[in-house]
Amino acid sequence: MSTFGNFFKVHTYGESHCLSVGVIIDGVPPTLEISEADIQPQLTRRRPGQSAITTPRDEKDRVEIQSGTEFGKALGTPIAMRVMNENQRPKDYGNSTMDKFPRPSHADWTYQEKYGIRASSGGGRSSARETIGRVAAGAIAEKFLRDVAGVDIVAFVSSIGDEYLFPPTATHPTPATNPEFLKLLETIDRPTVDSFAPVRTPNTEAAKRMEDLVTEFKEREDSIGGTVTCVIRNVPSGLGEPVFDKLEAKLAHAMLSIPATKGFEVGSGFGGCRIPGSIHNDAFIKSPAVPPSQSGLASGVPRPRLTTKTNNSGGIQGGISNGAHIYFTVAFKPPATIGQAQTTAMYDEEEGVLAAKGRHDPCVVPRAIPIVEAMAALVLMDAFAAQHGRAGMRDLLSAAYEHKTLANGKPTH
Amino acid sequence: MSTFGNFFKVHTYGESHCLSVGVIIDGVPPTLEISEADIQPQLTRRRPGQSAITTPRDEKDRVEIQSGTEFGKALGTPIAMRVMNENQRPKDYGNSTMDKFPRPSHADWTYQEKYGIRASSGGGRSSARETIGRVAAGAIAEKFLRDVAGVDIVAFVSSIGDEYLFPPTATHPTPATNPEFLKLLETIDRPTVDSFAPVRTPNTEAAKRMEDLVTEFKEREDSIGGTVTCVIRNVPSGLGEPVFDKLEAKLAHAMLSIPATKGFEVGSGFGGCRIPGSIHNDAFIKSPAVPPSQSGLASGVPRPRLTTKTNNSGGIQGGISNGAHIYFTVAFKPPATIGQAQTTAMYDEEEGVLAAKGRHDPCVVPRAIPIVEAMAALVLMDAFAAQHGRAGMRDLLSAAYEHKTLANGKPTH
Amino acid sequence: MSTFGNFFKVHTYGESHCLSVGVIIDGVPPTLEISEADIQPQLTRRRPGQSAITTPRDEKDRVEIQSGTEFGKALGTPIAMRVMNENQRPKDYGNSTMDKFPRPSHADWTYQEKYGIRASSGGGRSSARETIGRVAAGAIAEKFLRDVAGVDIVAFVSSIGDEYLFPPTATHPTPATNPEFLKLLETIDRPTVDSFAPVRTPNTEAAKRMEDLVTEFKEREDSIGGTVTCVIRNVPSGLGEPVFDKLEAKLAHAMLSIPATKGFEVGSGFGGCRIPGSIHNDAFIKSPAVPPSQSGLASGVPRPRLTTKTNNSGGIQGGISNGAHIYFTVAFKPPATIGQAQTTAMYDEEEGVLAAKGRHDPCVVPRAIPIVEAMAALVLMDAFAAQHGRAGMRDLLSAAYEHKTLANGKPTH
Amino acid sequence: MSTFGNFFKVHTYGESHCLSVGVIIDGVPPTLEISEADIQPQLTRRRPGQSAITTPRDEKDRVEIQSGTEFGKALGTPIAMRVMNENQRPKDYGNSTMDKFPRPSHADWTYQEKYGIRASSGGGRSSARETIGRVAAGAIAEKFLRDVAGVDIVAFVSSIGDEYLFPPTATHPTPATNPEFLKLLETIDRPTVDSFAPVRTPNTEAAKRMEDLVTEFKEREDSIGGTVTCVIRNVPSGLGEPVFDKLEAKLAHAMLSIPATKGFEVGSGFGGCRIPGSIHNDAFIKSPAVPPSQSGLASGVPRPRLTTKTNNSGGIQGGISNGAHIYFTVAFKPPATIGQAQTTAMYDEEEGVLAAKGRHDPCVVPRAIPIVEAMAALVLMDAFAAQHGRAGMRDLLSAAYEHKTLANGKPTH
Repeated sequence: MSTFGNFFKVHTYGESHCLSVGVIIDGVPPTLEISEADIQPQLTRRRPGQSAITTPRDEKDRVEIQSGTEFGKALGTPIAMRVMNENQRPKDYGNSTMDKFPRPSHADWTYQEKYGIRASSGGGRSSARETIGRVAAGAIAEKFLRDVAGVDIVAFVSSIGDEYLFPPTATHPTPATNPEFLKLLETIDRPTVDSFAPVRTPNTEAAKRMEDLVTEFKEREDSIGGTVTCVIRNVPSGLGEPVFDKLEAKLAHAMLSIPATKGFEVGSGFGGCRIPGSIHNDAFIKSPAVPPSQSGLASGVPRPRLTTKTNNSGGIQGGISNGAHIYFTVAFKPPATIGQAQTTAMYDEEEGVLAAKGRHDPCVVPRAIPIVEAMAALVLMDAFAAQHGRAGMRDLLSAAYEHKTLANGKPTH
Repeated sequence: MSTFGNFFKVHTYGESHCLSVGVIIDGVPPTLEISEADIQPQLTRRRPGQSAITTPRDEKDRVEIQSGTEFGKALGTPIAMRVMNENQRPKDYGNSTMDKFPRPSHADWTYQEKYGIRASSGGGRSSARETIGRVAAGAIAEKFLRDVAGVDIVAFVSSIGDEYLFPPTATHPTPATNPEFLKLLETIDRPTVDSFAPVRTPNTEAAKRMEDLVTEFKEREDSIGGTVTCVIRNVPSGLGEPVFDKLEAKLAHAMLSIPATKGFEVGSGFGGCRIPGSIHNDAFIKSPAVPPSQSGLASGVPRPRLTTKTNNSGGIQGGISNGAHIYFTVAFKPPATIGQAQTTAMYDEEEGVLAAKGRHDPCVVPRAIPIVEAMAALVLMDAFAAQHGRAGMRDLLSAAYEHKTLANGKPTH
Repeated sequence: MSTFGNFFKVHTYGESHCLSVGVIIDGVPPTLEISEADIQPQLTRRRPGQSAITTPRDEKDRVEIQSGTEFGKALGTPIAMRVMNENQRPKDYGNSTMDKFPRPSHADWTYQEKYGIRASSGGGRSSARETIGRVAAGAIAEKFLRDVAGVDIVAFVSSIGDEYLFPPTATHPTPATNPEFLKLLETIDRPTVDSFAPVRTPNTEAAKRMEDLVTEFKEREDSIGGTVTCVIRNVPSGLGEPVFDKLEAKLAHAMLSIPATKGFEVGSGFGGCRIPGSIHNDAFIKSPAVPPSQSGLASGVPRPRLTTKTNNSGGIQGGISNGAHIYFTVAFKPPATIGQAQTTAMYDEEEGVLAAKGRHDPCVVPRAIPIVEAMAALVLMDAFAAQHGRAGMRDLLSAAYEHKTLANGKPTH
Repeated sequence: MSTFGNFFKVHTYGESHCLSVGVIIDGVPPTLEISEADIQPQLTRRRPGQSAITTPRDEKDRVEIQSGTEFGKALGTPIAMRVMNENQRPKDYGNSTMDKFPRPSHADWTYQEKYGIRASSGGGRSSARETIGRVAAGAIAEKFLRDVAGVDIVAFVSSIGDEYLFPPTATHPTPATNPEFLKLLETIDRPTVDSFAPVRTPNTEAAKRMEDLVTEFKEREDSIGGTVTCVIRNVPSGLGEPVFDKLEAKLAHAMLSIPATKGFEVGSGFGGCRIPGSIHNDAFIKSPAVPPSQSGLASGVPRPRLTTKTNNSGGIQGGISNGAHIYFTVAFKPPATIGQAQTTAMYDEEEGVLAAKGRHDPCVVPRAIPIVEAMAALVLMDAFAAQHGRAGMRDLLSAAYEHKTLANGKPTH
């Protein structure tokens, strides 16, 4: 099914060559101030053709709200959004290449196996255009989270190939224990990330190394993968369901649903397996005082009284947010479309040579930034709605039991 | 919510000190041959107290089917199962430690933040006992998958601390490209894994190194994490939903829902980011002939005509299984319970010293094996049911359209 | 949430005055032959303005497929459909009436209570325009059910006010026991129903009485309700889930989700409470031979060996279809919009007089026909998908166990 | 699937002859004061064997909480409950009757068609014992609703056969317009209903007539159906989702999921189709002042400022509760098990005579009372949780936007 979320429910549609792509969102809080102007920026950030090292095709991608808002406010009913496809019907139907070859490491073959039919453009929904609906929905989720709790979600490139922003070392097998990394998480914002275009890694030297690497792969008509790290600040505590829907489980689900991803780690991650528990454990400390302007307190989402001295947990313990920053890293494989010719079997089981392709995008990692942010926003929004409802019912019980006690002449406080 | 799956729906209950833990499963295929004897072995494999390096506590954990079967066959109705808790009510209620301290990197604090109440034994459902229901359900899923398609699911320890079964090298930043690793995936089985008790890593030398490491941490009253790798063989092609519920996304969700996990990678994983696309792409080849006895053909689940020469994709492309082996690795952090005293804030925000603890389990990775296998079985079973239903409807259409064509005197073949 | 169904999942959007209304459908069987031409007819049947006794407003309502099909076949991916609203933004914003008065028995007040905001056109999604997405989705469900199993769904008006097609009598407190009624169920089709426009009750005399009654209410500037009966023929046996999602429960849910409905009864219904069990029980008989052309056998959906002599059960026993015709009746209240002035409280709690309204539709029952059919199709399609998947898994087990037996040298047949 | 609800999620298990029946509930608000003592009374009310006119079999049915509570308070985690079956394994396996005959109007045949296997006791889950889990879950839902909002749910028998509590008349084709009926809805409570045992219709004369009728059917070895009416008082406004999950749609779904039901009507119901809109419309009036003790205000669930003069809507408009009493009626068919011999086909398609049965229950309607109440509670609880969460998020936005306005130096009030 093409839905995500239980409380803030996102339902996307669209292939790369049909009339349009889009999304319906159920569960947008009524009265949320929202319009196309809140949504377009992230769509624009995910567009290809933004620099020399990404594909030059310009997709435009103007979002159009169909329903669910009036005079700039959400009505609480489903918000539908649509983005037209410019190249709607495959001109190349009957294209001998697409008809003969399942492209290696693409989804052509598995879609055919699954559905017994496939779009003439290949693996229909596996196109990156599918992510448009997610990014549009994520922008709405994010607007709510920012408005009510000051939540900040910022992703950046943390490695391309063997070039890292924070290379693993013997002392720090995971950046989680590296003070420089933790400092970056405190302050990094989207304008800063974008200022390091085209690679979007927030360090001049690392950016130069990565850009050179991508250029090298472009020249070789080859491709290369990388990782994206994302931090979420000002997360309310108590989010995440304790068993199957742990917050990290939902984040992992969300991230691995992005095309071309191969891995996910939260907090100390894989490197954390290599650290003794005595160092890995995050001791509790009293939370520092936070100015109300930064705390989300204005809207009634309080910060917890305790926080942790270190943050190897990545802000999540027992599947539930503890109020510290959440951060995680996602691995993206090298793009399957490469300029070189490839020897591979055809649908008819005969071996053939899939011809060299002209222009291609040697590294999609920088473009994945807004998609990672959007999926993080969807997870957080859904968890927020779940938990806020539960906490609200607990508050009702608390008021009722207090009232009962008072009525019995036995006040409790 | 405590449910997992849409078609094979698992609903668990139980804390560590309540009357019992258990599960209801909806969607068990009717006529499946199933009894306690099929379920108990995996429960026994997950029990603590199996060796010198795990905790000596013996939990017994006898499973008892409550409903949904008769004379050893599933009726198609919900199967409920129950395992008694032996230590049902906390003797140590009023225990000053548990009342005063949220244990570092445990779930005590976040449960309190989430629910405004917590079990006297700490973070209620965060106990490893909760996984009993999952393992019981997984055993049923696995029975079906094995009976109808010969699916094999085998997990093993791939690292503890810095000791690896296949250490990353410059040539092989991921074992995915290492022929030795791929050979192991072909043949590894559970008896072999268990023969390397207590660490369950299928290599004499690596097992020795890991066991020594765990012993060292035990002596230091410290703890250490590690990774588990799991392979699934004989996977039917076409499993997984193309957008949000990609097969790897569901696997990631499932694995990160296991207590103490910090990361997930599928196929080439994080190391795959460092390999050029020209090498990473899995070229298609004609599938080798497979004897029917091993192919699952007997039951009508066919193997696809094509397979891939390499398997960096880990058996999944575009979120959909291609019929090759699926394999993935899960990271487990060091256990939060350690013997050493820890300085940490109390619930009342004052700093205190959480006293040293006596016996503890320095490494839980080997015990996680059956849990990883169970969660993998649940994901696969759910995807199988989804896809088998869809394919069945396509077959109906195919028959109907053929019939229509024939009736019109225009046979198509 | 605005979704319906678990396997064939329908998600609608749109208010009466936003840009468009529409739907995304997940779970359309791949290769289904479908295009706008299959969908438009039912949309056209639901449009207002089709006769003298319905409102003259012409809405056009052209459906436009956005995604999920190519060359007239479903790809198995989500099908999105859109119908433009012609009158997109309320001209009458600031309209004093809508701002002051919650209209009696409309949804203006409850939407305001629920969301704390309301569309300027009143109770946003409560508009009949919302049903467009349902009817479009229902047409696709119906296409599949007809193609693979010859399922026929036909609804007709069975009463308006006190005028009945089959008035209750002492002998037949429910038409379920009336042979004339049962005969009608065997043969009634949509062209026949439409030929009795404008009231769509398939009997010349009853149609005349009902039409006169509606005219009388129109002249009085009043309104009147009625009932719609729907029959579903060629239903495969085994559909419906045994406990909460009994087939009649899902039908009741679906029907009561249609605007203005007040009741639902299946088979003998309310009248059936008045019949002795000895008469009400449906004895089993051997199924009559059915020519393959009418049986759905072509596509592999078999008819059961037994059927029932009478059909007070309405084709459902224990929540599961038995293969006999399913039939049910739905009650619609008189439309809340009437021409007469009404004394009622305003939003500010003061009493006022809601002015007389000009043109209005005194009876919406005939227009509800395609909506009832659509919702019936959605329920049946979802149940079909659920059951077909389950039966398919049972078939796999059956094949596997037979194979095992054969392999053991103990053939079972 | 055997689950009900999205926010307060109920999952039942168990056949009539397996080890136990039971339920897991997810979404119980943490800190709710709950114990077996709150649950047992309704289970006891649904037990058979309570009077001369119901079956004498005594089932005991002691409920046992397995998890999710501690020291009488809900932990917020799943609450599992279990009731043992006393007659666990069918003594009569190989019973020639059950093996040969699908009982008319029972679920034996449809279960066999659906699953290809059936419990030796017949249609497994179709047994009335399955409702135990529902009643237990309903008692918990009800406890919460009563504690926080003073919600009262009371059901009573409104007809048996042709004997009515409020017979339809020309003036009042529906009791909805009958002041006597509306007065009864204001005051009726469970002790009063039970005082009219065995028929549970709150009127001495009607009770006598109904009891005589049941006795007559008992003597004839026949059976008879009837209707149950249920009122829900102190319903918060704003409950119910506007499109597919209208509150009446969920109620209809819930009621038609109860074994032996054939119909549902809300508010004016089927009789409402016969009333002019000018009378049927419920004009708004200012709400009367309510003493806080009765209003639920104590716990923060406010009563709306407006209510309706009449209540043909049954407390629901546009699918959303308006704060007035909700009431509805459910039709139950005559029990399929009768003492008389029946001629009917056997599984092998041959006609046979299903022998006369000894003792039987000629009318199950009075026993359905607590089941109707339980299902109503489940629907309301789920809707309450959905809406309370939504309203809470709106409040957060409201606070945030007010704060923003204040921060800009432009206070709004």
